[in-house]
Amino acid sequence: MFDYQGNFQTAVAAVRNEGRYRVFADIERTRGNFPCATYYSGDGPREITVWCSNDYLGMGQHPDVTDAMRTAIDKVGAGAGGTRNIAGTTHFHVLLEHELAELHSKEAALLFTSGYVSNEATLSTISHILNDCVILSDELNHASMIEGIRSGRSAKLIWRHNDLEHLEELLRELPLDRPKVIAFESVYSMDGDIAPILEICDLADKYNAFTYLDEVHAVGLYGAEGGGIAQRDGVSDRIDVIEGTLGKAFGVMGGYIASTSAFVDAIRSYASGFIFTTALSPVLVAGALASVRHLRQARELRERHQERAATLKTMLGAAGLPVMPSVSHIVPLHVGDPVRCKAVTDFLLERHDIYVQPINYPTVPKGTERLRLTPSPLHTDDHIAALIDALNEAWAVLRLQRAA
Amino acid sequence: MFDYQGNFQTAVAAVRNEGRYRVFADIERTRGNFPCATYYSGDGPREITVWCSNDYLGMGQHPDVTDAMRTAIDKVGAGAGGTRNIAGTTHFHVLLEHELAELHSKEAALLFTSGYVSNEATLSTISHILNDCVILSDELNHASMIEGIRSGRSAKLIWRHNDLEHLEELLRELPLDRPKVIAFESVYSMDGDIAPILEICDLADKYNAFTYLDEVHAVGLYGAEGGGIAQRDGVSDRIDVIEGTLGKAFGVMGGYIASTSAFVDAIRSYASGFIFTTALSPVLVAGALASVRHLRQARELRERHQERAATLKTMLGAAGLPVMPSVSHIVPLHVGDPVRCKAVTDFLLERHDIYVQPINYPTVPKGTERLRLTPSPLHTDDHIAALIDALNEAWAVLRLQRAA
Repeated sequence: MFDYQGNFQTAVAAVRNEGRYRVFADIERTRGNFPCATYYSGDGPREITVWCSNDYLGMGQHPDVTDAMRTAIDKVGAGAGGTRNIAGTTHFHVLLEHELAELHSKEAALLFTSGYVSNEATLSTISHILNDCVILSDELNHASMIEGIRSGRSAKLIWRHNDLEHLEELLRELPLDRPKVIAFESVYSMDGDIAPILEICDLADKYNAFTYLDEVHAVGLYGAEGGGIAQRDGVSDRIDVIEGTLGKAFGVMGGYIASTSAFVDAIRSYASGFIFTTALSPVLVAGALASVRHLRQARELRERHQERAATLKTMLGAAGLPVMPSVSHIVPLHVGDPVRCKAVTDFLLERHDIYVQPINYPTVPKGTERLRLTPSPLHTDDHIAALIDALNEAWAVLRLQRAA
Repeated sequence: MFDYQGNFQTAVAAVRNEGRYRVFADIERTRGNFPCATYYSGDGPREITVWCSNDYLGMGQHPDVTDAMRTAIDKVGAGAGGTRNIAGTTHFHVLLEHELAELHSKEAALLFTSGYVSNEATLSTISHILNDCVILSDELNHASMIEGIRSGRSAKLIWRHNDLEHLEELLRELPLDRPKVIAFESVYSMDGDIAPILEICDLADKYNAFTYLDEVHAVGLYGAEGGGIAQRDGVSDRIDVIEGTLGKAFGVMGGYIASTSAFVDAIRSYASGFIFTTALSPVLVAGALASVRHLRQARELRERHQERAATLKTMLGAAGLPVMPSVSHIVPLHVGDPVRCKAVTDFLLERHDIYVQPINYPTVPKGTERLRLTPSPLHTDDHIAALIDALNEAWAVLRLQRAA
């Protein structure tokens, strides 16, 4: 007889043996007290400082957002009550899709229940619609893009991360009239580097390729109105599909694409992951709408965010801590081993009430395990100083490698 | 050169030519006024009665739910701010997972961003973990299960809908020690029929198979505490995995599985669609927690729900309208053609302020297009009478086929 439970236990034991078994920290944020939160440890709750949230600007606690959500609850209630097609499209959805299209200077936008689903559903559906399509995928693309491409089952070519020569090499060998999709991200979330979007668009034009850009770690944060790196670089109109999230800088939950009306209508009509699922709660949509509107005008908040990240990087470098190169708001600190990575974060949490989650495989390649710090505009100089002190102590106690 | 936009336009035109192009009705529910809502038509907003919501019990507007969501917003804010592993596990998530495990008499539960994702992520991950696994899938399983099975790429055998003999035939031919997963639903959402769970469990025992049951159209609605059909039939302990949603009877949004600790831990550790996505907003989780707790004690509401469905079926039958056989709260009305199906629902909405979405391919097989009515405990006798009158008129004006 086949031992089902034994097999599941063995699978978990394998993860444990590699030192990358995940223990979810049970935390409760306190509105108005960002970036602090309550940590429910085994010994009872205590106050911590969060250094690894993707609510990059603290918008999840902004009064515009929470007020809009409260109003939506009072007005319409909790859930959408159906798929977008069957009773689940509310006026909030319509308004937010208009707003997002405008944010990205596109004809239309489409909401999904998450950024993950928007990537997976859209990329797999592109493959179904474009016969004999080839997807050219950056090697560091997010799991959701990889799943979407895999699920679409069209031919896939992987180009070396941000490597324009390699991308061109691959494009050059494909027939000009064969459909080709270049799929990539703007800000890569675990390294904090940024794609050369303009040059990729030039290649797309030269070789007649379609461009799909994941901006989930950039929307709200870059560009004059928070339209992402494409907006900052003035190339929004040259990207065919921009994909974004409502769950990071916008502080709520959900994902979207923005593109031509024809493209959005095709995805809307064919994507299983869009069609057969309950629509986003109108409460989330109302909150996201308020957040997008607020951030379109929040230039100073974006500047303060960049300043905080720059300050943190400088101070880590000055302390001899192995900060990895990053040109964005994401600040990775190299450890290189899953067990040590977990040990240093346990140390920070237990001794210093600082919460940073260890980043291990499969989120990053083995051997590149790291801490991933996300300074927000609300992290003060004191928060940074306390973090540097705690890291210095951890590096000494655990005998970790310092910067060369 | 390849014409990308032209290809997307052609894909949409194909849907349009089949008469199944989807126009989303832009509606806004009014809290406290369920099942009525405001419809944003081209000519301005007007009041309608909704007859196709999956908020089956109106819990999306229940004060317990909306109060809990409001409190969560006040306390912690809008979004989770990260994946479950990276800063996104809140105390609400922990509490709801405990509650759901208890509801289904299982050791553990795991939340996903939607029911769709819970099916897709879990079924594909089972295939990755159980080497050489075969999935036996009911032919009418939901798109999300089909996608999960497809994505997992293990062998798949499709058994005729609810056909125990066919299922046994397939099981008999497989080696006893080869891993086998029987994947099925309890209440099938478009027909309203119910699987013979006990008999399927007997077959699973006989042939050493693992059982995966989708209860999304049953949780909250059946069983002494709303634990679904498995609970009603007293067989919860014989099902290996129960999958449910927070977006239908519970009135909010999100999905989950309940199973052994070993199984849940394995899915938690391996499923891409669980790991790499922002956690459910704590606001939704708080609302769902209140909803589950309320419905565990709401026996009378469930009885009233069944009574309303029975009354509607009786009245449709008495009027000679082609109500399809259903043993659940779902009441399908046969039309059999996508263009006519859309025409009748347009007629109901324009002439009678009654909103029922046409159900066309790919949601149901071509030739079986239908209306799908979902009476709730809050639909009154007057609502039902008005619906029957409007349907009678539509059937006459559009010369649709009446019941034999």
